[in-house]
Amino acid sequence: MRFQRLLQMRRLATSASASATLMRAPKQTTHHSTMGTSLSVRTMAGSGAAIPELTKITDNVQRGNYATLNDADVAHFEKLLGTNHVLTEDLEGYNICFLKRIRGNSKLVLKPGNTEEVAAIMRYCNERKLAVVPQGGNTGLVGGSVPICDEIVLSLQRLNKVLSVDEVTGIAIVESGCILENFDQRARDAGLTVPLDLGAKASCHIGGNVSTNAGGVRVVRYGNLHGSVLGVEAVLANGQVLDLMSNFKKDNTGYHMKHLFIGSEGTLGVITKLSMLCPHSSKAVNVAFIGLNSFDDVLKTFVSAKRNLGEILSSCELIDERALNTALQQFKFLNAPISGFPFYMLIETSGSNGDHDEEKINQFIGDGMERGEIQDGTVTGDPGKVQEIWKIREMVPLGLIEKSFCFKYDISLPLRDFYGIVDVMRERCGSLATVVCGYGHLGDSNLHLNVSCDEFNDEIYKRVEPFVYEYTSKLKGSISAEHGIGFLKKDYLHYSKNSVAIDWMRDMKKLLDPNGILNPYKVLN
Amino acid sequence: MRFQRLLQMRRLATSASASATLMRAPKQTTHHSTMGTSLSVRTMAGSGAAIPELTKITDNVQRGNYATLNDADVAHFEKLLGTNHVLTEDLEGYNICFLKRIRGNSKLVLKPGNTEEVAAIMRYCNERKLAVVPQGGNTGLVGGSVPICDEIVLSLQRLNKVLSVDEVTGIAIVESGCILENFDQRARDAGLTVPLDLGAKASCHIGGNVSTNAGGVRVVRYGNLHGSVLGVEAVLANGQVLDLMSNFKKDNTGYHMKHLFIGSEGTLGVITKLSMLCPHSSKAVNVAFIGLNSFDDVLKTFVSAKRNLGEILSSCELIDERALNTALQQFKFLNAPISGFPFYMLIETSGSNGDHDEEKINQFIGDGMERGEIQDGTVTGDPGKVQEIWKIREMVPLGLIEKSFCFKYDISLPLRDFYGIVDVMRERCGSLATVVCGYGHLGDSNLHLNVSCDEFNDEIYKRVEPFVYEYTSKLKGSISAEHGIGFLKKDYLHYSKNSVAIDWMRDMKKLLDPNGILNPYKVLN
Repeated sequence: MRFQRLLQMRRLATSASASATLMRAPKQTTHHSTMGTSLSVRTMAGSGAAIPELTKITDNVQRGNYATLNDADVAHFEKLLGTNHVLTEDLEGYNICFLKRIRGNSKLVLKPGNTEEVAAIMRYCNERKLAVVPQGGNTGLVGGSVPICDEIVLSLQRLNKVLSVDEVTGIAIVESGCILENFDQRARDAGLTVPLDLGAKASCHIGGNVSTNAGGVRVVRYGNLHGSVLGVEAVLANGQVLDLMSNFKKDNTGYHMKHLFIGSEGTLGVITKLSMLCPHSSKAVNVAFIGLNSFDDVLKTFVSAKRNLGEILSSCELIDERALNTALQQFKFLNAPISGFPFYMLIETSGSNGDHDEEKINQFIGDGMERGEIQDGTVTGDPGKVQEIWKIREMVPLGLIEKSFCFKYDISLPLRDFYGIVDVMRERCGSLATVVCGYGHLGDSNLHLNVSCDEFNDEIYKRVEPFVYEYTSKLKGSISAEHGIGFLKKDYLHYSKNSVAIDWMRDMKKLLDPNGILNPYKVLN
Repeated sequence: MRFQRLLQMRRLATSASASATLMRAPKQTTHHSTMGTSLSVRTMAGSGAAIPELTKITDNVQRGNYATLNDADVAHFEKLLGTNHVLTEDLEGYNICFLKRIRGNSKLVLKPGNTEEVAAIMRYCNERKLAVVPQGGNTGLVGGSVPICDEIVLSLQRLNKVLSVDEVTGIAIVESGCILENFDQRARDAGLTVPLDLGAKASCHIGGNVSTNAGGVRVVRYGNLHGSVLGVEAVLANGQVLDLMSNFKKDNTGYHMKHLFIGSEGTLGVITKLSMLCPHSSKAVNVAFIGLNSFDDVLKTFVSAKRNLGEILSSCELIDERALNTALQQFKFLNAPISGFPFYMLIETSGSNGDHDEEKINQFIGDGMERGEIQDGTVTGDPGKVQEIWKIREMVPLGLIEKSFCFKYDISLPLRDFYGIVDVMRERCGSLATVVCGYGHLGDSNLHLNVSCDEFNDEIYKRVEPFVYEYTSKLKGSISAEHGIGFLKKDYLHYSKNSVAIDWMRDMKKLLDPNGILNPYKVLN
């Protein structure tokens, strides 16, 4: 329900029960699905941008000293996997990244069906010195999952099984090529939820999520994947299978090497299987969508949400008005419940008792309005309406690429400086950009800064980079909060890691992949 | 209040409000301290056991090919640190482990005051090939923090400052030698709580906790340290300072190498500083101490706690009657609220709204009694009483070593097989053991199996080991859930890790510490 005049009504009706009634949202027992199948990210992907030129040419990439694929190699793989699982034609979808920024020129896509086949492929490629790029749902935003030159694409899409889900302990074991939404559905059938949720869930693979240490909209509640992933099975560059699986929350036996594969973007090994701790799904989910007059009010509201909603707070997202309006213009099916504010927040609670949660959220909103921090909004626990509101948030990034080219930045900044860079960047870009906006995971200090223009434009590119990284570095922020480094950010890694750390990363890479065949041209330059 | 006859009373008073009144616990606003200073673990430590023989002799340890300390070395360190911080006498407390099982023969303890001094020490030792054991509070249970032969002890106790605590983001930066309880107090002053709590908190160092990936009684709520630790500064064997600090929840820039130092027990580097995500402290904390008739009822009660208490469940501990009774016999100041049951559970909730939490916990207990799973118990929200109940749980491990030698095992097992090994072990040990009991973190599938006897006894040792590891391995459990590997379990690592993984651990060790000077004789054999 709308609560624009809650404040006045509240002053009239001072009893707690009256206030609770005012704010009561319909009951619900099931969780929302965050994206309808008709709106899968894959379908929507960057439909406005043209097919890019080969990245090897645009970015002047020097091909590594790898072998070149020949007919004998293809015949070998056909014998290993069967001809159905060896593709040599129509490879565009595997060669071009989600944002249509990166385009490789792979001549071969392999689709192994199990860990042993992945191991056999890697063993062969390592001996032959053939470069390989592991690929999940190919929804990454830094060009980490596509070839840069002619690397073989190793698609994990046939490793798509959920192997087990334990309703009591919450521990699930899943193959890496399982689509996140499918994994989540299996978890929900057992009363659990995957502690990871992001816009691309209808296409992205859980193995890709783990390989890139994906973030998303639930980190504020469930933490990052280093905490949730209990075990990993990874195939190394030389074809060895490194079994670091564990079915327990606690396993303190020796070096915790699995973390090397979480967030190294397929450059140290290919994740084939993993176990994950899935929390019990919440009986009640409520979402508030609120309008605010200033970023200062946004910050105050975040602090209040942490204090008042405490353990039931499950998302705290920010959208500025330009980001919202772009999505509303591009996607007429979206319904924004309120309009006319410079800032919007989407705040979600998930708890085990609907009445308790409503009371908490009503208190939080009532207090915020009374203090003049929250101006207007809506709150709902109805699953359909919850989904509608989430859809607004999820379509924001897609709105920006629907008919434009978009420079996307994903940075962590101290909260007091969180939004300033958006204004600074708008000033720098002037009329060259069509939209400069910010949105993101306020609850994690994670801003998505976006600069849209009609098409890739070198002048605007130079105004934006490396300025955005220098600015972030001066504030000791992270130049990649959740998207990773991939190809697009590898030259900027030094803004967030010093040379000692980068040198040790190189040593790690050399130890685990001495021939450098695993996802070359990524992470390290 | 006691709720032995709640069931009958509840049947009479069917209204929800009457039930709530029956169970209402006193309000509280501050969190309990889990251990009074008068009962610090350090004071209590293994006071019953005699000073052991040197481990080099008892365990027939072949000294590594390291240099031997000479006067010039001592003079060098005195010049570097000042004579006050270089100890060469009265080193017993640094040479003997908490359990009085391991005794080394170090001739030198160094107490650097900052990261640069730690780096200078390591640089020198690496060049001279002098072996070093990093030491925090020396409360570990696997002999990981004491010398085995004559390693130099590198004590972190002077790096004890809390550097910053951010009330809004919950991110704290702390030096590694800070005592956990002191760190927690600073966090509480800012309305936060350190997401780690264990019996040794009055002595253990946060750096030691992180180096050993310590578990404790809050993992069920806040997860493990790989999720909570945001950044680490570590000094490597060669004296390089590896700055992997981060002040953000999300920093996805490159390999997440910090995890190599979390749980590698000081064998890959010396943690000098870290940043940690601290949740906001809960306004309401309630504890229930309940008696149950069978392990089957324990399991059912755990499932019910997860379902009904959901997001407010913050601990779920099991104590069997032998473990409880031993503590009660040894420590007369303890008051057990109930007696006469084979199993007890301590269930804690932490939430932001005391009324809501009471309602949930009352519902949970009422239902459990109605189904006949919970027999009797007490529930309280009074801080003093909460502390009293926690003290029972915390004194259980100390009771077992108060006047005895104790073989301690710390294993993860599937929940359905969780307790069986205690009965099996009691049978195997017969009259050789004085107490065979089990307690631990049921919510994490983590059992502490304890076998007490008058003094270390080779016959009983052979009955217990390697049987306990073989049994655990057959059930695909973990032979060390939270205590780590250290010296005592290194020969059993293969029961939880296969040879490929162990070989890669060796490669990691060789890469980071080619001279093997950091904490030798530990983790890897």
